[in-house]
Amino acid sequence: MKTMVKGMDLSNAVNKVVKAVSTRSPNQLLEGIKISCHGDTLTLTATDTEIAIEKVIRCETFMEGDAVVPGKLFAEFTKKLEDVEDIELNILQDGRLKIVYSGSESYLQALSADEYPVIKKDIDRNSFVIKQKTFKDLIASTSFACSQDDSRPILKGCLLELKGDELTCVALDGFRLAVCKKTVKEATGDIRAIVPSRALTEITRLIEKDEDYVTVVIQENSLMIDVDNTVFTTRLLEGEYIDYKKIVPQSYLTTFRVNRVALFNSIERASILAKVMKNIIKLDIHENYVDVSSDSEMGNVKENVLINLEGKDLTIAFNSRYVIDCLRVINDEFINFNLNTPIAPCVIKSNSDDEYLYLILPVRLNQ
Amino acid sequence: MKTMVKGMDLSNAVNKVVKAVSTRSPNQLLEGIKISCHGDTLTLTATDTEIAIEKVIRCETFMEGDAVVPGKLFAEFTKKLEDVEDIELNILQDGRLKIVYSGSESYLQALSADEYPVIKKDIDRNSFVIKQKTFKDLIASTSFACSQDDSRPILKGCLLELKGDELTCVALDGFRLAVCKKTVKEATGDIRAIVPSRALTEITRLIEKDEDYVTVVIQENSLMIDVDNTVFTTRLLEGEYIDYKKIVPQSYLTTFRVNRVALFNSIERASILAKVMKNIIKLDIHENYVDVSSDSEMGNVKENVLINLEGKDLTIAFNSRYVIDCLRVINDEFINFNLNTPIAPCVIKSNSDDEYLYLILPVRLNQ
Repeated sequence: MKTMVKGMDLSNAVNKVVKAVSTRSPNQLLEGIKISCHGDTLTLTATDTEIAIEKVIRCETFMEGDAVVPGKLFAEFTKKLEDVEDIELNILQDGRLKIVYSGSESYLQALSADEYPVIKKDIDRNSFVIKQKTFKDLIASTSFACSQDDSRPILKGCLLELKGDELTCVALDGFRLAVCKKTVKEATGDIRAIVPSRALTEITRLIEKDEDYVTVVIQENSLMIDVDNTVFTTRLLEGEYIDYKKIVPQSYLTTFRVNRVALFNSIERASILAKVMKNIIKLDIHENYVDVSSDSEMGNVKENVLINLEGKDLTIAFNSRYVIDCLRVINDEFINFNLNTPIAPCVIKSNSDDEYLYLILPVRLNQ
Repeated sequence: MKTMVKGMDLSNAVNKVVKAVSTRSPNQLLEGIKISCHGDTLTLTATDTEIAIEKVIRCETFMEGDAVVPGKLFAEFTKKLEDVEDIELNILQDGRLKIVYSGSESYLQALSADEYPVIKKDIDRNSFVIKQKTFKDLIASTSFACSQDDSRPILKGCLLELKGDELTCVALDGFRLAVCKKTVKEATGDIRAIVPSRALTEITRLIEKDEDYVTVVIQENSLMIDVDNTVFTTRLLEGEYIDYKKIVPQSYLTTFRVNRVALFNSIERASILAKVMKNIIKLDIHENYVDVSSDSEMGNVKENVLINLEGKDLTIAFNSRYVIDCLRVINDEFINFNLNTPIAPCVIKSNSDDEYLYLILPVRLNQ
C-alpha cells in the first residue's frame, strides 16, 4: 500500500474511529486501527467487537493494500500532523507503516489485516429516520439511568421501541427508570432493540448537525448509523428486558407542581451537606410548599420551595443524585411529582407534555 | 455576629480564600475559613500556615463577631447562593452559623476564632511595583522547573532577586534550570527571597488585570501582595539557594538557531513514541539541519528540522518533557541552542533578547 492523504483529513478520521479501539484486549488486532486503501479512498476501521466505527476519506493511491496499526499511538501521532498538507502512508515489505511528511519520515509497527474482524453491513432490515437533535435529546434524557455494573448486563443497555412513528427509549438500573418518547420522520416498520448505553453515547458524539436527519438501521443483531462518511455499528444486547410499564403506578395520592430550577437549586444545596450521609435528602410536602432538608454532623440545610399540591401531605426521602440527574434533563419550567407513600415509587413528569417520565425509588428513613 | 451580604460578593470571596485552606491538617481550624465582621466589612481568611489569603467585602452589620466555618463546605455552599440577593449570616449562641436566604435557613457547625492563627501584616520592609502581566510571565516561564519532591525543600521555591530595577526569578530541580529577568517599575531597595512555587502559582491566579500594576512586599520572612481587597501572604523558604550561575557554561562549541514552533512540533511527535522509552529523544546536529529522533518497539520517528549552525556537529539526547516545557514558554519565533559535549549541559535562549535562559542536563546514550 502506498497512498497520499491530507493531514487534517487523516487526523479527523483517525481520531473519530479511535473511540472504538479496544483498550485492553488479548487480541492485539483490536487495539489497532485497520487502514485499507482501495481506489481513491482510504478506509479506517476500529472495533472492540461491541462497537465499530469506520470512516472513509479521499486519498491519492499509488498502490492498494491494508494493514493494522497501533490505534492510540496512530491517533496521537496524526493529531500532531493536522497542519501538514500532504502525508504519504506506505506499508513496507517488512510490514511497517512508513509515514512521510514535510521532509521527515517515521515508522510504526503494523500487523497484517488478514485476521481483522469483518464489520457486517448487511442489507437494511428495518430503519427509521429521525432529526439528529431529537435523537440526541432522547438518548441524553434516558441513558444516564442505565445500570453501570455487570451483575445484570441487559440493564447496561437502553430499550429502543418503535411503534408507528413513536420511538420510545427506556433505561433503568433498579433504583430509577427513565422513559422518553419522540416522533420519527419515517420508518420501515416496528422495531424493538436493546442498545448498549455506551454505544448510544458514542452516537450522540457523531451526530453533530442538530437540524439534519439521521437514518438508524437495525439489522439482525446490530444497530447502524451512517453520517458524513462515518459508519457506526454496535452489537445489540440479547435477552428479555424488564416489563417496565408494570413498575409505574396507575394512580397517586399526592401530586404537586413545582418550578424546576427552584427545586433543583434547593436540592443541590441540600446535597452538599448530604454528601457525608449517603446523599440522602428529605422532602416534607405540605399544602403550599415543600421543605427540602438534609442533615449531617457538619450542619443542616432546610429550604422552602413553593408548590401546588393536590392530595395528601407526605414525607419522603431520596438519594439526591437520582433526583438531580432527572431535574437536569427535563426541559420544562414546571414539573410534576406524583407520589403515594414514603416507600412507594415517585414519578416525575414534565408539566407541558407527556414525552418524559422518570421514576425513583425512595430511601427508607430510620425514624 | 449578625450581618447581611450579597450572594455574589460572598461566593466570590469565599471561593478566592478557600485556595489557602489546608486539605488535611491535624488542626481542624486550618480546614476552616475565618469570617470576621467589624463595622461595615466582613473579612474572610484562610491559611494553611504556608500561604494565607484574606478578602474583605462590604456588609450590613447588626452585631459584630467572628467564627471559623468548614472551608470547603462553605465554599461549595456559597457557590450555589451566587444568585441570591441578600444573605444573612448569624453566629448563634450554640456556636453554629445560621445562613438565611430566600425564606430558607441552613446551619453550619462553626468553631471559635480565638485560636485561629493571626496573619501578620507588618509595616512594609521592602517592596517593588511590577506590571501584573510581567510578573505573571516571569513566574510562568520559571516556576515549572522547581523540584516537586521534598528531598531538598529549598528547590520547591523560586529565588526572587531584585537588583536596581532588574528582577530575576530562578527555578531548578537538579535536571534543569530556568532563569528569567524582567524590569520593575519602582522598588524600595534590593531584595533576595525564596518563594514557594505553589504560592507563586496562586498569585498568578489572583492578579487578573494584565495592564495594572501590583505591589509585592517582602517582610521579615514573608511575601505579601494586595489586589482588589484580597491580601495574599506566603511564608518564605529558609536556607541557602544553589549558586546557579556556576552551573551555566561560559563558552560553547556548538550553537544553533532554530524556528521554535518547527522544533516544538517535531519534538512533540518524537515524544509520542519516546513515551515508552523514558521520554528519551535524540538530536543529531548537522551543518544545516537537526535530526530529531526517538525509538521504541512500536516504531520510530526521525524528523528533519532546518537550523543555522555555528561550530561542531553533535549528537545529544534529552528527556523530551524537559525540552517541551521550555519551548512552550519561550515567546520568540527563533531560539538558540548552546552546547559543548553529549554529557555537558545545554543552554536554550530566546533569540531576540537576553531575558530568558533555560539549561537542561542531557541523558547519556548507551551506545
